[in-house]
Parts: sequence; structure tokens; C-alpha cells
Amino acid sequence: MDDRIRRHARVLVDHCTDVASEDDVEIRAPTAAEDLVVALYEALGRRGARPTTVWRNPRATRAYAREMDPDDYRPKEHRVAALAATDVVILIKGARNASETSDVDGEARQAASRAKEPLLRERLDTRWVITQHPTAADAQRAGLSTAAWRSLVYDAVDRDWAAVRERQEQVADRLAAADEVRVVIGDDADLRFDVAGMGTYNDAGRENMPGGEVATVPAVDGVEGEIRFDHPLRRGGREAEGVRLAFEAGRVVDYAAERGEDVVEDLIETDAGARRVGELGIGTNRGVDRVTGNVLFDEKAAGTVHVALGDALSECVPEDRDENESAVHADLIRGAGEDARIAFDGETVYRDGEFLIGGGDGSGSD
Amino acid sequence: MDDRIRRHARVLVDHCTDVASEDDVEIRAPTAAEDLVVALYEALGRRGARPTTVWRNPRATRAYAREMDPDDYRPKEHRVAALAATDVVILIKGARNASETSDVDGEARQAASRAKEPLLRERLDTRWVITQHPTAADAQRAGLSTAAWRSLVYDAVDRDWAAVRERQEQVADRLAAADEVRVVIGDDADLRFDVAGMGTYNDAGRENMPGGEVATVPAVDGVEGEIRFDHPLRRGGREAEGVRLAFEAGRVVDYAAERGEDVVEDLIETDAGARRVGELGIGTNRGVDRVTGNVLFDEKAAGTVHVALGDALSECVPEDRDENESAVHADLIRGAGEDARIAFDGETVYRDGEFLIGGGDGSGSD
Repeated sequence: MDDRIRRHARVLVDHCTDVASEDDVEIRAPTAAEDLVVALYEALGRRGARPTTVWRNPRATRAYAREMDPDDYRPKEHRVAALAATDVVILIKGARNASETSDVDGEARQAASRAKEPLLRERLDTRWVITQHPTAADAQRAGLSTAAWRSLVYDAVDRDWAAVRERQEQVADRLAAADEVRVVIGDDADLRFDVAGMGTYNDAGRENMPGGEVATVPAVDGVEGEIRFDHPLRRGGREAEGVRLAFEAGRVVDYAAERGEDVVEDLIETDAGARRVGELGIGTNRGVDRVTGNVLFDEKAAGTVHVALGDALSECVPEDRDENESAVHADLIRGAGEDARIAFDGETVYRDGEFLIGGGDGSGSD
Repeated sequence: MDDRIRRHARVLVDHCTDVASEDDVEIRAPTAAEDLVVALYEALGRRGARPTTVWRNPRATRAYAREMDPDDYRPKEHRVAALAATDVVILIKGARNASETSDVDGEARQAASRAKEPLLRERLDTRWVITQHPTAADAQRAGLSTAAWRSLVYDAVDRDWAAVRERQEQVADRLAAADEVRVVIGDDADLRFDVAGMGTYNDAGRENMPGGEVATVPAVDGVEGEIRFDHPLRRGGREAEGVRLAFEAGRVVDYAAERGEDVVEDLIETDAGARRVGELGIGTNRGVDRVTGNVLFDEKAAGTVHVALGDALSECVPEDRDENESAVHADLIRGAGEDARIAFDGETVYRDGEFLIGGGDGSGSD
């Protein structure tokens, strides 16, 4: 086994989820990630933890969704019960065919998403992490050789996460103190976010591996303006390109796409919360040296920002504030390496892919 | 997909477990059984049920067991919670390499078995079935081509189970009324089982698919005599041949094997219940036309009998009787096609592979 797989497993068990003896650990993984699952069992055995693997199987999901009456979707009670007794969840992505569920229709997709909401809430109550095992199909989707994709994945994962945390702290502190964030990118974006009193998220690789972003959540009605995204939105094996969103009082009031507009429509129509913003994030991970269409990596790429529609990052929403709830949390990525400016309360803190605050080499230089 | 896989899935969902809308269904399957899992999701979607798949992964099990301190094994609480909320369990066997866990030592194996006991109890409270998906590795182990193994599996599964039930009923009734069963096979076996007041099990394909046996459980201290098994005992990728057992007052008081005696020892030393008999069964399935070393099939083969060490078939034990409990239930198979006689209370009811009672074509002729 490639030794990078064992190192990846150790980062997940030691750094991300800090697994202890007797923790009940749920791994969710597709067949294609088998090597990482084996490495995780090795690491978990060493810690005396108790793992179970739930098999993520897009072929089965598709077969089921095509036969199931969308009105019959209900939360799986045995999954809710399992998660309520689970301490740690390790979610592994990695496709054999990333388009496997592309011919499942939007109604079934939305019904399935809604039925998963109680599971999502239970998972968020555990120590959880989402990660990626590099496969040939995902490399193909990124337009890379399998070897190049593997290198990108492990370069992004294998970092000094303690140093990342420290460098990002200054940006996170300034953001926490700000009332308004403005993002301007050429003629494509001019968005204002009301973040007064909201928290910040210094992502140094806990819930996402790779990590590497600084994020916040705007007030439920606190987003105004327009943006055009220059990277694709991918949902369940389908994709939209050139997505444009217009916001008023926090809600998407208009949307369009150059290609795949139905994908945007399916997303936005999932539920009321899918029309509102659950996150504004700024990527800092220089191991992610290109946008590949994989959101787990793209949103961390230094020189990008992202806006998520749907469920809010809970850690950024104080208890006395409204929190946007949704069955979805869909990140849209926008390059910010050129002609881009981010201001906190009118002061420019980020220009063309670089933070102007945050220490000598910049918060994003790891 | 081979249409026999879809028929197999329908037998499991319709006949064996009678899945209803909104049932929570747990499938446990290895990678090698993916096609059957997909067919099951199709059938379950049609019924409006809610499936989850737990990934059985011998490579991961091995990696874990080799790192885990045997003293640290504990029941997985999240698995117990999940099963308590589960209506139906479909357990699928099928190996890519049946020897994958052969280098896990006996102590770890026993500790893992013991930690699974609460899960076993929860599973027995659901509507459950164990079945087999035919793989190349299992064909190899049986000494068959993959195509021949597939045919054997589907011939054994694809039967008129209502007719099987009816034909076996007369044997089961006679057995229920008997006080003693005696099994004599040449010079190799002379066993007496005290079955007074115990129930019988008419297996027409519910908990096992394929089914096809009539079984009972002796009183906890009600087994006397000796037997030599002429088919291998296989446990966790290891095997023993020519196993001999001697019983006194229901307990194994002596054991030996021509090869792999340590496999017998590991089994018998698991716990106190592993020394006692949890089942005496007589196979009736003529679709299983040879003994291949796969116990799920071999114990159903017409012309064989089997004795299981360990946990008792609960359905055969009246509530006011002692029931043998164990973390294991290990079936040992003995050919009974030649020089074999089974008597209920002194009356011969079975000779050389054929029941002498049970209607025109014999109970075992399906």
C-alpha cells in the first residue's frame, strides 16, 4: 500500500477526529476507497476504537431512486439511532464513476436529501471529518493523470496543520470583529455580507481534510448584490457552468446558468433554506494549486472564495441569532486571484489572492 | 446484470423477509456482492423500504485485528443501537479471497466473536436472512468453475419454497413428537440426542437462502456418543479436516482432527457454550448436488446431516427449557448418503440419504 495512504489515515484519526479508545467510529466509504478504509482500520485498531463501515454505493442509490416513489422517502430510523450512538464519523469521497447517479431525476434527489436531514444533524453532533481518496475516475474528471491527482490530494492533506491554524488566526480575529464584508471581483461580483456579531471559522483541517480556509456566515437576511461563478457547480453527477446569482435581503431572487440551469433549479428548490447563504469562505491551501471541479479541494484553494447555499456553518452562528437550515449545503467557487478585493468594514484586507494581514508570508502561504 | 441476480433479490425481499413499506433494512455485504446489493436496492425501492449497507470487509477486519489489543474488544454500541431500530437484516456472503483473515490469531478471533454477541441477539430479533452471492474465489474454494458455482447457487435458491415447506412438515411433526434421535453412520457415528419436549425447525428458506433442512436442538446435557465428520470445518479462512468429537452429558469431552486441530480448539475454547450442541439438522435440498465446503449449502444438501456447536436455534427451545448460549454457532457436516440410519424413538425414519416418511417423492426430493 502507498505509504501516503497510511499517513492520510493517521491524519484523519489523530489530527482531525482525535479518536480515543472505545470511541464508536463510523466510516462511510465507497468501494473505490477500500485502501484508505483498510489503513483506517489499522490506525483505529491501534487506538482501541470500534469502527463500522457504511458502504456508499452510487449504483445502489441509483437503482433505489429509480424505483422508489418520491413521496415515500422518510428518514432512516436505524441510521439516526446508529449516529446518535456514534462518537466519530469519517466520510470518504472517491468515485469509480462520478456520473453514476446522473440519471436520477430532481424530485427523487430532493426527496432523498430532505430525508437525510435528521442524519445530517446527528452527524454534526459527532466529531466528524470529510475527506477524499484519489481514484482514476476523479482524476479523469479533473483532467489529470491518476498520479497527478494523487499528488494533489496528498500535497493538500499532508501539511503542518498547527502552523496553518496559527497563521489564519489573525485574519479570523479581524473578521470576527467586522460588521460587513464586501467582495468585489472585476465586473463579475459585488456582494455585501452583513456579518455583525457572527462568528468565524478558522479551518485548519478538522472537519474537512484537506482544510485551509477562513469562513463566516452572514445574517439570514444579510446578503445583497450579484455574483457570477467561474467554476462549475456539481450535484449528484450533474453539473452547471457560469452560474449567476442575485441576492436581496439574503434571498436568491434571480438565478441563471450558461449550462445546466436545471441543476441550479433542483438545488434552490430543495427547501426554503436552499435560497439563502450558509457560508462565505476564503481559501488558503497552497497545496491545492489548481481548481479541479472538486469542491472539497477547490474551496480550500488559495486564490478562491466560495459562497454556500443552504445549511449554515453552525459554529459561526451565535445561539441568539437565526440560523439558516436546509437539507443542502452547496458551495459555489469563484476565482479571486485577479482583479479581486475583499474589504472588512471598508478596509481592504485581501487583494488578488493574497491576504494583506496575517503575518510575514501571508495567511495563505502554507 | 444476470437475471438470476434479480430473481435472487426478489426471493430475499419477498419470500425470506417479506419486506414492507417503511421497513428499515440493513444489508451486510462484501464488495464482491455488489451486483446483488444493487438488485436488492431496486427491489427495496419498489417496496418503499429504507435500506442501509454495512460493508463487510475482511481486509479491514484483518488490519484491525492485528493492531487491536484483544482485551480491548467491546460490543459496538452504535451497531447495537442500529440493529435495535432495524426491521430486516439481509446478510450476504461472498469472498474475493476466502483466506483473507487466515493470519489473524485465535485470541483476537475469539475476542471479536464475543464482542459480537449482543449484535447477534439484536439481529435474531429482526426478520433476517443469510445468503450467498457467487464469486470466483468461492468457486475456486469449491473446486468449481465460476459458472458451475453460480449454477449451484441459483439451483439451490430458485425453488418452490411453499412446496418444500409442505413436504417437510410430516418429518418435522414426527420429530417434534419424538423423545430420542439416534444417528448411526457406518463406524463413524453413533450419537443419541435427547430431544424430549424440544421443538423442530422446518427450514423452507426463511432465515437461510438456500434453505432446505429439518432441525431440532437437544437438551443442554442430552448428547452422548461419538462422530467423525467427513467434510472440513472452516472458520475465518482456516480449516480443519477429519474432525472427531466425543460427547458425554451434552459436552464435548474429547476432540481431534486429522488436520487443523487448532481451528477446532479455537472454536471450542471461545466460551462455555461452544462445547455444547446448538442444533442437529438433516439436509433436504436436492439443488445442492455436492458438498463444496460452504456450510450454508452443505448443511442443506440432501444426503447430509449436521451438528452445530454453540448457540442454540432459539425457535426449537421452549421457554421453560435451558437454552445453550454462545458467541458461535459452527455447523459440522457429515455425509449420510451411505450406510446411514436415523431413528426417532427406535423407529428408522431415514436411510442412506432418503426419508422413509414424508409423502410420495420423499421430503428431500425437491
